[in-house]
Amino acid sequence: MIGGGQGAFIGAIHRIAASLDGLYELTAGAFSSDAEKSRATGVLLGLPPDRVYASYQDLIEQEKQRPEAERVQVISIVTPNHLHFQPAKLALENGFHVILDKPMTFSLAEAKELQQIAAASGKKLCLTHTYTGYPMVKEARQLIASGALGTIRKVYVEYPQGWLSSFEEGSDNKQAAWRTDPTRSGIAGAMGDIGTHAFNLLEYVSGLQVVKLCADINVVVAGRQLDDDGAVLLKLSNGASAVLTASQIAAGEENNVRVRAYGEKGGVEWQQVDANTLQVKWLDKPTEIWRAGTGYVSSYAQHNTRTPAGHPEGYLEAFANLYRNFALTLQAELAGEPASPEALDYPSLTEGVRGMAFIENVIASGKSDKKWTDFIV
Amino acid sequence: MIGGGQGAFIGAIHRIAASLDGLYELTAGAFSSDAEKSRATGVLLGLPPDRVYASYQDLIEQEKQRPEAERVQVISIVTPNHLHFQPAKLALENGFHVILDKPMTFSLAEAKELQQIAAASGKKLCLTHTYTGYPMVKEARQLIASGALGTIRKVYVEYPQGWLSSFEEGSDNKQAAWRTDPTRSGIAGAMGDIGTHAFNLLEYVSGLQVVKLCADINVVVAGRQLDDDGAVLLKLSNGASAVLTASQIAAGEENNVRVRAYGEKGGVEWQQVDANTLQVKWLDKPTEIWRAGTGYVSSYAQHNTRTPAGHPEGYLEAFANLYRNFALTLQAELAGEPASPEALDYPSLTEGVRGMAFIENVIASGKSDKKWTDFIV
Amino acid sequence: MIGGGQGAFIGAIHRIAASLDGLYELTAGAFSSDAEKSRATGVLLGLPPDRVYASYQDLIEQEKQRPEAERVQVISIVTPNHLHFQPAKLALENGFHVILDKPMTFSLAEAKELQQIAAASGKKLCLTHTYTGYPMVKEARQLIASGALGTIRKVYVEYPQGWLSSFEEGSDNKQAAWRTDPTRSGIAGAMGDIGTHAFNLLEYVSGLQVVKLCADINVVVAGRQLDDDGAVLLKLSNGASAVLTASQIAAGEENNVRVRAYGEKGGVEWQQVDANTLQVKWLDKPTEIWRAGTGYVSSYAQHNTRTPAGHPEGYLEAFANLYRNFALTLQAELAGEPASPEALDYPSLTEGVRGMAFIENVIASGKSDKKWTDFIV
Amino acid sequence: MIGGGQGAFIGAIHRIAASLDGLYELTAGAFSSDAEKSRATGVLLGLPPDRVYASYQDLIEQEKQRPEAERVQVISIVTPNHLHFQPAKLALENGFHVILDKPMTFSLAEAKELQQIAAASGKKLCLTHTYTGYPMVKEARQLIASGALGTIRKVYVEYPQGWLSSFEEGSDNKQAAWRTDPTRSGIAGAMGDIGTHAFNLLEYVSGLQVVKLCADINVVVAGRQLDDDGAVLLKLSNGASAVLTASQIAAGEENNVRVRAYGEKGGVEWQQVDANTLQVKWLDKPTEIWRAGTGYVSSYAQHNTRTPAGHPEGYLEAFANLYRNFALTLQAELAGEPASPEALDYPSLTEGVRGMAFIENVIASGKSDKKWTDFIV
Repeated sequence: MIGGGQGAFIGAIHRIAASLDGLYELTAGAFSSDAEKSRATGVLLGLPPDRVYASYQDLIEQEKQRPEAERVQVISIVTPNHLHFQPAKLALENGFHVILDKPMTFSLAEAKELQQIAAASGKKLCLTHTYTGYPMVKEARQLIASGALGTIRKVYVEYPQGWLSSFEEGSDNKQAAWRTDPTRSGIAGAMGDIGTHAFNLLEYVSGLQVVKLCADINVVVAGRQLDDDGAVLLKLSNGASAVLTASQIAAGEENNVRVRAYGEKGGVEWQQVDANTLQVKWLDKPTEIWRAGTGYVSSYAQHNTRTPAGHPEGYLEAFANLYRNFALTLQAELAGEPASPEALDYPSLTEGVRGMAFIENVIASGKSDKKWTDFIV
Repeated sequence: MIGGGQGAFIGAIHRIAASLDGLYELTAGAFSSDAEKSRATGVLLGLPPDRVYASYQDLIEQEKQRPEAERVQVISIVTPNHLHFQPAKLALENGFHVILDKPMTFSLAEAKELQQIAAASGKKLCLTHTYTGYPMVKEARQLIASGALGTIRKVYVEYPQGWLSSFEEGSDNKQAAWRTDPTRSGIAGAMGDIGTHAFNLLEYVSGLQVVKLCADINVVVAGRQLDDDGAVLLKLSNGASAVLTASQIAAGEENNVRVRAYGEKGGVEWQQVDANTLQVKWLDKPTEIWRAGTGYVSSYAQHNTRTPAGHPEGYLEAFANLYRNFALTLQAELAGEPASPEALDYPSLTEGVRGMAFIENVIASGKSDKKWTDFIV
Repeated sequence: MIGGGQGAFIGAIHRIAASLDGLYELTAGAFSSDAEKSRATGVLLGLPPDRVYASYQDLIEQEKQRPEAERVQVISIVTPNHLHFQPAKLALENGFHVILDKPMTFSLAEAKELQQIAAASGKKLCLTHTYTGYPMVKEARQLIASGALGTIRKVYVEYPQGWLSSFEEGSDNKQAAWRTDPTRSGIAGAMGDIGTHAFNLLEYVSGLQVVKLCADINVVVAGRQLDDDGAVLLKLSNGASAVLTASQIAAGEENNVRVRAYGEKGGVEWQQVDANTLQVKWLDKPTEIWRAGTGYVSSYAQHNTRTPAGHPEGYLEAFANLYRNFALTLQAELAGEPASPEALDYPSLTEGVRGMAFIENVIASGKSDKKWTDFIV
Repeated sequence: MIGGGQGAFIGAIHRIAASLDGLYELTAGAFSSDAEKSRATGVLLGLPPDRVYASYQDLIEQEKQRPEAERVQVISIVTPNHLHFQPAKLALENGFHVILDKPMTFSLAEAKELQQIAAASGKKLCLTHTYTGYPMVKEARQLIASGALGTIRKVYVEYPQGWLSSFEEGSDNKQAAWRTDPTRSGIAGAMGDIGTHAFNLLEYVSGLQVVKLCADINVVVAGRQLDDDGAVLLKLSNGASAVLTASQIAAGEENNVRVRAYGEKGGVEWQQVDANTLQVKWLDKPTEIWRAGTGYVSSYAQHNTRTPAGHPEGYLEAFANLYRNFALTLQAELAGEPASPEALDYPSLTEGVRGMAFIENVIASGKSDKKWTDFIV
């Protein structure tokens, strides 16, 4: 693992997600750019001192020199955005598979370069867009793909949070500090942090791509350097329209990402606060409450659930699904067998490049006087 | 009553709303432009034949000639949009108060003219924007007005319906037929029918006015003449931004209008499907479930509720609140006393003119290549 | 109307319920045992002074002497429990139909006597068990009656309130005072006031009858004279078991009566807080959300709904359904035609007698050391 | 681990719960009484062959002979009920800590004996009553313990499931087979399997003990040998009353255990389907939605949550909380330090003995003609 030292939120999440199904073992880490902090985290995590490194370069170089059976196989990179590209590049080029936190890179150019590096390396990359790891999000995608709702005509996706309602970056809130800092987060704040999740959810569930957009991007809190709120009108590849909203100043909201998609015959609705449920709505018959862990859901939903219906799984399990599917894909490769379609269903380079394109397009649209702008990758 | 013959939806609603509190008695009507149909409806409603008229002109002229104590005092106009202005004008000019279904008129020009006519007549007009008649919508407005949430920064209002997902106007669906017909509905379909409700809710709850907008207006169903879907980015008078969506092709949705507004310290959320509840959210403490009929809500919510907490009131009671408040205002006038602020809180000419301005501005924006356009009244 | 003077809760509810559909006109009243108060209420309600009586005896005697076309046709009795029997008896014996608030009488003996009096009189009686007036409660009954769920095996009904958590009868709470007073309420407090509603709902929805019971009846608040809490184990006529709970000391609860019934193949759940929804659950497929106002519900649900799906109706409309169905039944009788099954579906004498039997059986069981006691009517 | 071979439900859950926080490593197992099956499971789990045993006796004896640093420290026993006592006894007597699935033993006598054995051994035991591992269940307990709700007066706990609505034990449903078999499950079916959870939740949340009970215990499905449904009236140690229901024939229900407790000033409600929420209700102010992961909840809720508010945790995390708190307690012991009160808050021997007493008392009451029977331990 690269990054994820003490005080980091997402590093701990990655470690739980990795361990949950017993498919990964944490064996080495460069947990901080501060060698001493990295060492201290290694001690806490019970790693042998010689597998705790002072830098990601050290980790990659020294692990590479270990015998193949002893070295790490997959490197998780859980650093802030500006520290995604270089470690990922180095890892791939040195023969390691990579799990990378979203958004994929600092800029679209980096993302496209990383895509090429990965292709050349023959190694695989998993991008942790958590929300598409939920079984009932997968069910929504499968139901739409099956044609049961007819052609999709409208998609709404929203991601409201309230935790940046005040000038948190002025206090010692480490999470707020880097996310609102253009030198670490990139050109976008809320649009990069949560807008990319909403965008990924929109394209994943609908099976469609954004082709045009028109954005209202706002910096609401005085003194803030990056956007903390936005709303986007979108046109999709089949001509349907969509609306995406993401806000970090919706005071009193936690993290209730929600998606709704409507076709000719019905619609689907999923929201994280009730993550094990997919509402399936019909023009002329009762709304149905589809539930994770039941026998009637698709192989994709079943594959990504560990417990019978009524035993709620949540965010950590959704995260773990990404790790698990990536591991199953790698195991299949090692075994010289094809991975199952369910295992292969994890976010990767294409999603990463499109996510970075979203960031650049949406920020540009926000500044433009033109109404509709093309979504350019 | 003018309009509201057999088969009409909203006429029956108006009659229930009027009778619910015992403050109105239906004594005369011109229920249809077809004299025979009007007569038949009058029979069904138990009216004396001499109070059932063949036309609205007849009704107004003949009622005016009755002694003051016997004539109708208030005329409800529940016809399609193209038949709002003339009867309302005639009624006001002949000394009758008017209750008018929304949107106020066929065009903004008519609305502004009606506003002047009303002012000159000294008679009052109530516009039936039902949703702002709900007690917990009033509570949301009062809470925001009190400053408890701080400055409002973001408002979302949505109005999803699915009943026009197919080409209903091709069948004998009378409701669909006139609403999708530009000669009867005006330049807007969904934006006029439900978008105006959403707009009214947005301005009423927030206490702010729309000053700019950017609209994506769609005709989704093949063959349809007017918009059946739209999304609008908005700027409000205090600089806040908002998003309004209205759709009649959200297959599987009923009529779940919803509004959320966020200030510096917290937010409110109301949706019609749970109409007796207002969610009040705070930055640093638990969300509160405020309920109609309780002792802790404002005088406005209490005034507009008939039952103790836990006895759900709904759409008809919200509608009846408009009728009741209008009656209380007229009674106060008759008594030479000031009406209470709670009674005066019903939608009227200003709301009607702004609603028509919304229709014209939003349709124009939908056709424009320009991103932001000023909201012009 | 007999009873329902100023300050009474249920009198105002009855008046709204009666007026809502325009099928009743309030023409006379004896609103209080205090002649002056009765007169004052009559003035407020706009009744002519000669139709406002000083006592129920006066009302019945004097109305009877009016010409048939001018006299009242139906008498609503909305007094406390101890004043149900005598006015109802007198009204029936003098040729008036009766609408009576629940529970039907002060004792089971009175109820059985009233049943005989009504039979002899040829007049009809409607007992206002509000909750079985809700369209989706009717839908639950119809669905079970259709056999779609298979044999019913278990029923839960609960009625939690919190408003008597303190010694309210010690303050000037008029509602609390008579409900906790054995001389006015009868032998039961909560069991009579809300337990009878729960019991009626249980038998109505399941289509089964209680045959045995075992009750835990409690007086929780110090100083109170009647029960304010209870739970009852029940055996039903088909051998199924049930649980009924009713409490007025569930602090923080409003009035959320709820019923669940399970058969071999599935179950239903209805609760007043979401009154327009019936959850229909199945062993092997998704739970369905059946909604009032839709095209797929039964004729009973449709008949008892005034608005399309998504326009919530509530407690007043449920109450009005009782009044409306009673009126339709009486109108059919007047017309010499059979009333429709939907119109005939209102609570009457049988439900009233069984409700009084519930009160006497449940209080007796609460005092008994014996576990199961037969339900004796 | 003892038990938990392929096809077992709860074994896999225990393994995930153990691994989730990185505090346990699975190093040995006797996964089945069939040596070959045990071996096969060991292979699947990647254990070295010499740590996979043919019987629990072998596991305990041979592990004991390993050097202390290499042997297992804690033995998880996840077998059916009839195979709890002997392995637990042997493990404790040989110096191993034990994690044991509920109910603790096959009979109350065994439970009391095991309690004495454990006391004598100086080793610790954790009983996996999952539901009291949820952070918001802990919050409910803490809130009641704080006195904020006043004296508790009424508790409702319900546990509805539908999965045994048919004669599942007649098919090859392994889970159904042993749970409905008196030789493996004990004298109770539903009351042992889920009734004990409900009982534990009731006593844990309220902080009170059951002192009397009156049970209606049913075998609903033809041919079944053990109860599949029941309802119990209870009296608690402070004089309050309670109702407990548990059913496995509530067709269409999943696993939605729910508890509500009411005091003089307010109440709490928690249900597993919305596990991260605690509803806190008050007599005179709005209901509050307390959420896991927030800053305002108690140290107990915070200690048992891994993610910020809005990132749902579920059943596996609740289960993992038991494992984690047990590990923290053992680590503190190893370190010679007192464990924190939050770590010590896991179910153990007292809860196990009371759970077995519940089974014996409730089944006896179900067969008794006497109404109230004392709860005897």
